[in-house]
Amino acid sequence: MLILNSKDSNFKIGFAEILQRAKLDITNLEPKVKEILDSVKNSGFLAIKEQISKFDLWNPTCENDFIIPTLSMKEAYENLDSTLKEALHVAYNRIYNFHSKQMPKTWLTFEDNGNILGQKVSPIQKAGLYIPGGKAAYPSSLLMNAIPAIVAGVEDIIVCTPAPENKVNPLLLAAMHICNIKHAYKIGGATAIATMAYGANFLDKVDVITGPGNIYVAIAKKLVFGEVNIDMIAGPSEIGILADGEFNTEYVALDLLSQAEHDEMASSILVTTNEPLAHEVSKLIESNLQNLPKKHIAEQSINNRGAIIIAQNLKEAISLMNEIAPEHLEILAENPLEILSEIKHAGAIFLGENTPEPIGDYIAGPNHTLPTGGSARFFSPLSVENFLKKSSIISFSHQGILELGDKCAILAKNEGLDAHKNAILARLHKKD
Amino acid sequence: MLILNSKDSNFKIGFAEILQRAKLDITNLEPKVKEILDSVKNSGFLAIKEQISKFDLWNPTCENDFIIPTLSMKEAYENLDSTLKEALHVAYNRIYNFHSKQMPKTWLTFEDNGNILGQKVSPIQKAGLYIPGGKAAYPSSLLMNAIPAIVAGVEDIIVCTPAPENKVNPLLLAAMHICNIKHAYKIGGATAIATMAYGANFLDKVDVITGPGNIYVAIAKKLVFGEVNIDMIAGPSEIGILADGEFNTEYVALDLLSQAEHDEMASSILVTTNEPLAHEVSKLIESNLQNLPKKHIAEQSINNRGAIIIAQNLKEAISLMNEIAPEHLEILAENPLEILSEIKHAGAIFLGENTPEPIGDYIAGPNHTLPTGGSARFFSPLSVENFLKKSSIISFSHQGILELGDKCAILAKNEGLDAHKNAILARLHKKD
Repeated sequence: MLILNSKDSNFKIGFAEILQRAKLDITNLEPKVKEILDSVKNSGFLAIKEQISKFDLWNPTCENDFIIPTLSMKEAYENLDSTLKEALHVAYNRIYNFHSKQMPKTWLTFEDNGNILGQKVSPIQKAGLYIPGGKAAYPSSLLMNAIPAIVAGVEDIIVCTPAPENKVNPLLLAAMHICNIKHAYKIGGATAIATMAYGANFLDKVDVITGPGNIYVAIAKKLVFGEVNIDMIAGPSEIGILADGEFNTEYVALDLLSQAEHDEMASSILVTTNEPLAHEVSKLIESNLQNLPKKHIAEQSINNRGAIIIAQNLKEAISLMNEIAPEHLEILAENPLEILSEIKHAGAIFLGENTPEPIGDYIAGPNHTLPTGGSARFFSPLSVENFLKKSSIISFSHQGILELGDKCAILAKNEGLDAHKNAILARLHKKD
Repeated sequence: MLILNSKDSNFKIGFAEILQRAKLDITNLEPKVKEILDSVKNSGFLAIKEQISKFDLWNPTCENDFIIPTLSMKEAYENLDSTLKEALHVAYNRIYNFHSKQMPKTWLTFEDNGNILGQKVSPIQKAGLYIPGGKAAYPSSLLMNAIPAIVAGVEDIIVCTPAPENKVNPLLLAAMHICNIKHAYKIGGATAIATMAYGANFLDKVDVITGPGNIYVAIAKKLVFGEVNIDMIAGPSEIGILADGEFNTEYVALDLLSQAEHDEMASSILVTTNEPLAHEVSKLIESNLQNLPKKHIAEQSINNRGAIIIAQNLKEAISLMNEIAPEHLEILAENPLEILSEIKHAGAIFLGENTPEPIGDYIAGPNHTLPTGGSARFFSPLSVENFLKKSSIISFSHQGILELGDKCAILAKNEGLDAHKNAILARLHKKD
């Protein structure tokens, strides 16, 4: 694993490279994805069917074939092993509780002259959740996307997921049952994003699309943004571990590996003030890699996109981590809460060695859909806010317009907007 | 002005056309805008200079020429007419107060076993505000974009605005002084968006770009989304007026016209249950149009994109308005607050005839940057939220990981993520 020391002369170049490689380059694939979107928009069923035949290796004969029956969700749930069932329910409840705390309220304020100002919060009407399928199935992604929508009060929740060889993973089906999903379709990739964004005969267009996916899905989401809202454009997963002091090096190594097994492009970065720990973690990563079922993926990730950075002091370590702005940040320090206020950018922050990152992927409660590639500088974790929108409320009293009308008319006039001015002055029974 | 009656047989077609024309078609201009963005990204100063020479008709000789000195803002402010100065200050204070009420707080919750979960709210570090200039200057847009950023606590606020013939409107300069803007540049259009999104020698890249603009600006914002966050993709302005009962028809006509003067593409739509009012408003629009300085613009807007819709009852009127999902919605009814709960989608809602839409453009307090083209279904008004981001906080106690670790490990294992499972089991001193 690459080890950089911030006191080395070429450190800046090496660190800049680490920052750079987190970026998602989408320019090459964009035309191809645009073609898929256009074909779904223009040809509907036929285009969807074609993509499914090609990638999922089955042949839908009519639009009903896309539907995942709610009965199959129920059956999958009932056939579930009881410990797994309980784990899913505990996860559901904890995620539900956390997201309930995020729920903003409609508010009104009253001015002495009778004016009312406020902000109305209302749910998005139709949300489309994209849940990857294929080689692995991710029931946790369904929980993490559906629950905030449920808490927000979304009326119609649509799920799309690819079904290779026309099969949907039973665990994903069971999770759909737990989330009470009524409308799910066996459509994957950019095709699914297009179907939800533009609508089709069998599906009204949605207002918001959320959910993870490969680079095709990410590009498709960027392209349909504006037509619908989206949560974020997500790239490969990342972890940054900030370790200041003495820690269980095996924990550190295992947590770095847990990110690396996601994707060859995933990135695991340790920033530490403890040089011996750096070297020990590096060795433990090598040895623990060997027994992983996903060794091939994790090895590529560690070799090409992993790094251990030795910082000279905690202040420097924090500053480097803020530049990385990682999706997941573990803080291992004597008093991690103390460091929290100095963390400027991170998707989710895991404090102390009892909080391994995977606990946040499944069961802690906060969302696991997080900004990647440095975009924690400006994107937030998926939350109920992604399934809500706001409207401003303005109600002026007669007294209110008398008090403020003139000032408003002056501003309108000075912006050259006479009709604006006229509308105000009419209320004051004045002409200019 | 087009008058449609919902009981007419061809109403559905006419109404569908009205809904359709609100959409912003950006496909044609996208390659051109992409070219501008790429040239700024690759050539920096030279590309910016070229665009300025071409569109703003002056020749910057070095990067310092882009800078708007804070001294010029101060001078413009000091030279301001006192009533105008007061109006700007009243607007500033009211907008500041309203946006302060939007400010979310960091929160933590504590579980009995010692786990801590929470959500950290922190300001965006660098925000770029785009303020249109050119034919007209919009100091109100500066207030509406800068104040939420100020309330959010953004460290670096950058303003870009075009300066035709190297001149910036004094009122805009004065507004910059009031907002204490320290970094402003005479760069406009897609060029400005690219400069802020990618950075340049004289300007670090920003994290978020907000602000209105023409279609080039809208497309540029869509293209840089992901590289930075943006507020929304905004099209031409719209008003919907819902009138149920007897109202001052002149007010209705003037409010519709106030939207029409913005842009030939602006859209003013009245939905009313009162047929005689419909016809009278139509006449009053014709007569009031004649004296407007912006008659040419307003006339095209009214003729091509304006409409009066006669609904058979209030319920239908509300339902049609929800389909329109207008940027600005005026509700004229006996008890407008009662109708509020039935409004599903609108950017800003103006209640009663003392609340003409222009009051919200300048001085009421809520933001005037609002979702257009039906996107009120999923976008919200510009707010402090656009200048904040959140990080989840997870801190597990030893007891916490003992209680939940096994359930988490089961879920990870069933998703085929063994390294995730290992990281958890290590904390439980277990192996699988």
